[in-house]
Amino acid sequence: MRLTAVVAACAFLSAAAHADEGMWTFDNFPSAKVKEAYGFAPDKAWLDRVQRASVRLENGCSGSVISKSGLVLTNHHCVADCAQSLSSARADLLADGFLAASRKEEKGCPGLEVSILQSITDVTERVQGATAGVAPAQVSSMRSAEMGRIEQEACGDDRKLHCEVVTLYRGGQYKLYRYDRYDDVRLAFAPELQAAFFGGDPDNFNFPRYAVDMALLRIYRDGKPAAFKAPLKLDPKGASDGDPVFVSGHPGSTNRLLTVSQLEFQRDHYLPWRVEYLAQIRGALLATAAIGEEEERQVREALFGVENSVKVFKGQRGALVEPAFFAGLESGEQKLRDALAADAGLREKYGDPFKDIEALAPVRSELWMPYQMLELRMGAGSQLLADARTLVRGATERAKPASDRLPEYADGRLAGHLKALSAETPIHPVLERLELEFWLLKTREYLGPDNSAVKALFGGRSASDIARDIAENSSLSDPAVRKRLWEHPEQVLTSNDPAIVLFRLFDEAARATRKSYEERVAGPESQASERIAAVRFAVLGSGVYPDATFTLRLSYGQVKGWDDPAFGKIPAFTYVSGLWKRATGAFPFNLAPHWQGAETKIDGAIPMNFVSTNDIIGGNSGSPVLNRKGDVIGLAFDGNIHSLGGAFGYDPVLNRTVSVASPFIVAALDKIYGAKALVKEIED
Amino acid sequence: MRLTAVVAACAFLSAAAHADEGMWTFDNFPSAKVKEAYGFAPDKAWLDRVQRASVRLENGCSGSVISKSGLVLTNHHCVADCAQSLSSARADLLADGFLAASRKEEKGCPGLEVSILQSITDVTERVQGATAGVAPAQVSSMRSAEMGRIEQEACGDDRKLHCEVVTLYRGGQYKLYRYDRYDDVRLAFAPELQAAFFGGDPDNFNFPRYAVDMALLRIYRDGKPAAFKAPLKLDPKGASDGDPVFVSGHPGSTNRLLTVSQLEFQRDHYLPWRVEYLAQIRGALLATAAIGEEEERQVREALFGVENSVKVFKGQRGALVEPAFFAGLESGEQKLRDALAADAGLREKYGDPFKDIEALAPVRSELWMPYQMLELRMGAGSQLLADARTLVRGATERAKPASDRLPEYADGRLAGHLKALSAETPIHPVLERLELEFWLLKTREYLGPDNSAVKALFGGRSASDIARDIAENSSLSDPAVRKRLWEHPEQVLTSNDPAIVLFRLFDEAARATRKSYEERVAGPESQASERIAAVRFAVLGSGVYPDATFTLRLSYGQVKGWDDPAFGKIPAFTYVSGLWKRATGAFPFNLAPHWQGAETKIDGAIPMNFVSTNDIIGGNSGSPVLNRKGDVIGLAFDGNIHSLGGAFGYDPVLNRTVSVASPFIVAALDKIYGAKALVKEIED
Repeated sequence: MRLTAVVAACAFLSAAAHADEGMWTFDNFPSAKVKEAYGFAPDKAWLDRVQRASVRLENGCSGSVISKSGLVLTNHHCVADCAQSLSSARADLLADGFLAASRKEEKGCPGLEVSILQSITDVTERVQGATAGVAPAQVSSMRSAEMGRIEQEACGDDRKLHCEVVTLYRGGQYKLYRYDRYDDVRLAFAPELQAAFFGGDPDNFNFPRYAVDMALLRIYRDGKPAAFKAPLKLDPKGASDGDPVFVSGHPGSTNRLLTVSQLEFQRDHYLPWRVEYLAQIRGALLATAAIGEEEERQVREALFGVENSVKVFKGQRGALVEPAFFAGLESGEQKLRDALAADAGLREKYGDPFKDIEALAPVRSELWMPYQMLELRMGAGSQLLADARTLVRGATERAKPASDRLPEYADGRLAGHLKALSAETPIHPVLERLELEFWLLKTREYLGPDNSAVKALFGGRSASDIARDIAENSSLSDPAVRKRLWEHPEQVLTSNDPAIVLFRLFDEAARATRKSYEERVAGPESQASERIAAVRFAVLGSGVYPDATFTLRLSYGQVKGWDDPAFGKIPAFTYVSGLWKRATGAFPFNLAPHWQGAETKIDGAIPMNFVSTNDIIGGNSGSPVLNRKGDVIGLAFDGNIHSLGGAFGYDPVLNRTVSVASPFIVAALDKIYGAKALVKEIED
Repeated sequence: MRLTAVVAACAFLSAAAHADEGMWTFDNFPSAKVKEAYGFAPDKAWLDRVQRASVRLENGCSGSVISKSGLVLTNHHCVADCAQSLSSARADLLADGFLAASRKEEKGCPGLEVSILQSITDVTERVQGATAGVAPAQVSSMRSAEMGRIEQEACGDDRKLHCEVVTLYRGGQYKLYRYDRYDDVRLAFAPELQAAFFGGDPDNFNFPRYAVDMALLRIYRDGKPAAFKAPLKLDPKGASDGDPVFVSGHPGSTNRLLTVSQLEFQRDHYLPWRVEYLAQIRGALLATAAIGEEEERQVREALFGVENSVKVFKGQRGALVEPAFFAGLESGEQKLRDALAADAGLREKYGDPFKDIEALAPVRSELWMPYQMLELRMGAGSQLLADARTLVRGATERAKPASDRLPEYADGRLAGHLKALSAETPIHPVLERLELEFWLLKTREYLGPDNSAVKALFGGRSASDIARDIAENSSLSDPAVRKRLWEHPEQVLTSNDPAIVLFRLFDEAARATRKSYEERVAGPESQASERIAAVRFAVLGSGVYPDATFTLRLSYGQVKGWDDPAFGKIPAFTYVSGLWKRATGAFPFNLAPHWQGAETKIDGAIPMNFVSTNDIIGGNSGSPVLNRKGDVIGLAFDGNIHSLGGAFGYDPVLNRTVSVASPFIVAALDKIYGAKALVKEIED
């Protein structure tokens, strides 16, 4: 449930929320409704305390502070990129796991930053005002510029803060989120990958489950463990079936407020394309991993990400082709359209924004594919090419006045680029070559060999030659080189580095493509979405939740199994004893080293993983699951297979959050991994 | 346009045919309509002569006899598997091409058989009668048995004949097709793969095109070139823009007569699944080919097949998600349903077969995936596993009375199995390992690790271990072993060969799955389809064409470019001069050895490839394109990208057949490949 891919998108509504539905902002939590359902609701003090201990991992995950010395509980799969970065052909922290012998031995995660939300301020009027009366083609850039100014005013260049203007309700609200930002985050503990991901791809998004998907990071400030006065407490007893529970975390992206025409695009074009794209690279990664141990090590983490995404997008598409599910989404929109049609005042003020979005379908069809491919919007991909882009565009954009720049090169964002480029993140040449060749082939496949950008890109060479050249010869694999080039933009523009040269070949075409898309699709679409949001508030009131935006949300629900249409009754808990039964000895059902022959070390009756009705989605990985007291009784790491439709709607009967149970977290650390000092720190 | 995958399916109708639409049977050709459109229509003599020279390649292609000594013109991609089979790490006939120095040097294609249609006999009454009043669950097996009896009565065990009862109009008619069958087919000429497939995957299904996709086979009878009195004549002048032209060949499968609910299944489930499945193995094949030359050689042909199929299935899905296209299919059905509703006599006789098919949707959803995976219905796949199945089932089935057997083991089919198993078809261990591991992983992915067949299949081993064991240790890679085992079924049942052992692990589950599917889905569906066909004949008359069934059809049309919505006016012809311009030097736009520096050897003004409005589909590859006189003016090898929707409907504005022009065929053989004797034979 790490955020695998942010689907950029636009608009608004749904019917009345189901029981337990919603990823609620902390400033609009439906306490009355929760109290009615569960006889209890968090008060302001509860919410404040949980907010201040809820961590956003900037790699797309969540976590929680569970000690006064900045220990952060999150998932193993959220630190997998860190463990991969810290590994080499000699020491494999991802496969073998890691336990720091002392705090001094904790290892910094290259490039990883975390943020903790401090305040939320409404800036809707200012942002909407900045684009009032502006032509649709200018909306995207004008709005971005205003958001950049607000962020810069609030946080300045202070690297210990992070400010973000967040678009909520697809333009219904804009809010300034102000975070404490930490850029020194170290790995304290991670189990073996095979323990964390026991059952592998077949069990991913499934339940019953036996995953040790947990890890511990530590936040440092000025070289010392960061001090927290009010960390969350890990409850060693855990929760019981039926207990009300809360998940505090950062769901990445949902599309529940899309219009029907936008959903049709997702169903018929976007999602099938993503699945095909990812399925092909999945095959390539699997075949590459089969070549040998070092190849396997280099591509492993990318493979997990891709397999996870394939399941996510297939699940989403599967939900949208269910006639009843789609009909529900259609009827939600129809109610709003009927209300709009019946209200002359609303019609006069907002027109028919649904129709306006429908009218964008042909131009979107024409423009979205070149925009995806040339602007490298497919996630994963070559790190060298991504770095080349940051360097080339960074050089060009910094030469312009702030108001003319692409928003990702606003003054407030520059330090982040330098930090990311300087990080000691290793480049995996086997993976780079594969990803580059794949991107080149797919770009030619989708745009056609006669497209002018494609011709420029290939320049009479084969995809395989270009990819090999860059993977073998680009000096951007050296963090010192990346840092130097960022600091000397004039060197970028004349560099002969093959990755930089390749990017320069299509930068102009990519920019043109993006400009067209923003002016002709994204701008008009976001204007229409703002109007739909206004209609929605007018019709349904403000007691609704916005789509997920990788910002802090609270979900409520209860520990509860489900009655599966294919597999029958699924109980809420699994127990350690079940792990031994499920292990076959062969990948991916083999036991990790620490677990082999460990039956006598740990009580088989301890609850291991459990499900609850909380409404979460990718990005929520690592979220604390909390009881009434606000103590941690679980660690969310996944959803069940039915939860994948959650991108578009929540089904209280079938959607479930999957978590590691707190008693197991303590027992595994203590009995299996011998992490006595960490256990003591957590219990203190 | 080789037949890539036969989509098994069921029912009936469409609206009135467009101009040039239709893959017409030779016994129901719409001569009056063609004459009206083009002022000419083939007469009986024309049809008979063309039929007797039209060849079906049993590997899924078409061809034509163009000399009295049995020379067959077809596509390079139709002989690619032959060239691959005749190659080794030392001699690469696929990459380097092949020209037999004399007839003696022509090389037998292992396992390849060809058939030439001699007669068509209506057996509808007998086949329908055999299942009259039979319970839906028994329909499939009863009908298969009756068809087997008819075939056996007509052809007996004569290996020079081949009989097939063909289901036309999805059960509206059953006809006995009687062929001359030839099992000694030799390769006389093939250009280099890079010449045949210039432009590779990017240009596949596109136009303008510069492909030398041609090859020559020779049919032998009793060790000598087979004699033909009336071969087709290759017209060295070719055709001109606007000329009426005819394509005689074997289109494999269309789904134009499916009901809307069957089409929805294709659109929402079947096609997206196929694309994902194939995209993943495509990635694996590409990554494997990148390892080294020998790996590339072993997987190359499979890769081409997979890339071709990905394009086909994506194109089909793309057509079905076009709202206007699908609405057209819906309205075609609605007309028929309205006519049925308005006619009490029809209703009483046939009920509502549309509804009956709709009602099958849930059970189909439940059963189709295990049926696909366990019955190895995804095409391609491991040859060793397929051979293990033939051996194991062959042993079991031959022990039963004929009436109890699976239809593919009816008496008339047994010699074919022996022939295929004994063929000197090489096994490629690299490809086998990849295909086996892939099938194992996908079977577990789709059926789940807790499925009992999956558990039996894996038995605590990993997919990679099972696949490696079989690829390295199965003796089924030896044709002599396969032959011996077929001849000694008792040895199969006790064999320790790892491929045979693996198949035996899931044979029972696979059979059960197939039985369920046939009894609960295919049987009832085909009964309903027969009733729909009857309604259709009653409403629309008999002047309609049946869905494609890999049987001989004639399509009419004219040489004509098109106005492309994305690319503007596309002229009908390309010329040799364009090849030099399109060549970049890098794969897949590099020139094959014979074409490098050959600008002075061949006239640039010779037409190379051309398009016509003929309605064809996969299986038509290698078909002769004929003028009024019945002379060959082209060699069909592809459709344009719009033709992919042709599986479901024909669009006269955009659908085009792509062919090699006859003047180019002669010039390339003569000037580039120096095939003087073959040119002389063709001209004689």
